[in-house]
Amino acid sequence: MTDRLQERIRRLIDSLATVEVGSVDANGYPNIKRMFNIPTEDYRTYYFSTNVSSMRRAQFAANPKACVYFTKRWDGVQLLGEMDILTDHETKARFWHPGDEKYYPAGLDDPDYCIFRFTARSGRHYHALASQSFDISELAR
Amino acid sequence: MTDRLQERIRRLIDSLATVEVGSVDANGYPNIKRMFNIPTEDYRTYYFSTNVSSMRRAQFAANPKACVYFTKRWDGVQLLGEMDILTDHETKARFWHPGDEKYYPAGLDDPDYCIFRFTARSGRHYHALASQSFDISELAR
Repeated sequence: MTDRLQERIRRLIDSLATVEVGSVDANGYPNIKRMFNIPTEDYRTYYFSTNVSSMRRAQFAANPKACVYFTKRWDGVQLLGEMDILTDHETKARFWHPGDEKYYPAGLDDPDYCIFRFTARSGRHYHALASQSFDISELAR
Repeated sequence: MTDRLQERIRRLIDSLATVEVGSVDANGYPNIKRMFNIPTEDYRTYYFSTNVSSMRRAQFAANPKACVYFTKRWDGVQLLGEMDILTDHETKARFWHPGDEKYYPAGLDDPDYCIFRFTARSGRHYHALASQSFDISELAR
């Protein structure tokens, strides 16, 4: 992958307020949900804030295989990897923002608040009609 | 599902130029790709034009379980069902548009041109923090 393409992919990832997250449900069907894109620091690890009671949490607890899809116009990046579910106070505090009480009424230690941590294993870039796989270590910092 | 919600879902589906299509790859990972949204007639059956040589085609040939995700702002509709791959002349002619030669240089009978037919089995509607499953027969016409 060229330096130029690496930068293009990083810019796409950084520019999006929301992304699509894929999971596989108990019946083996792919599922998709739009989630907030929390800025990544290393392009290998991505975090998402969600409810413990959510369908997505139950799906990833049973099957951690996950996809995160970034797309804008005719550019797309698909990352495949594993989703972990974190419930420790330190992680929850790290991603807590004022106003999150609307999602988690009991606040930071609301037992319904958890963090998904996605670790990318491989990547693929789409642009118009062309696509190419890339090694995530080339993108990661 | 109320008539009002049915109409809201139909309007969302009709309004989108592109949708996200989910598949499960040979390693069991969910995959997502943005595809053109060809207008549906009955809200149960959806069609997509693509290349026979595409990764998606190979994935659905091995595992037809599919997801189609429609989303705009805080509304989302996820349909789960099966994806068939059609290569007959009649179907290919039905969805051919002038200019499609840029995707399929040999024209309508290009062996690399095929049509995906998605048949929805179940649906789920998301709005802000709420979500509810619905019976696809309520939506279908």
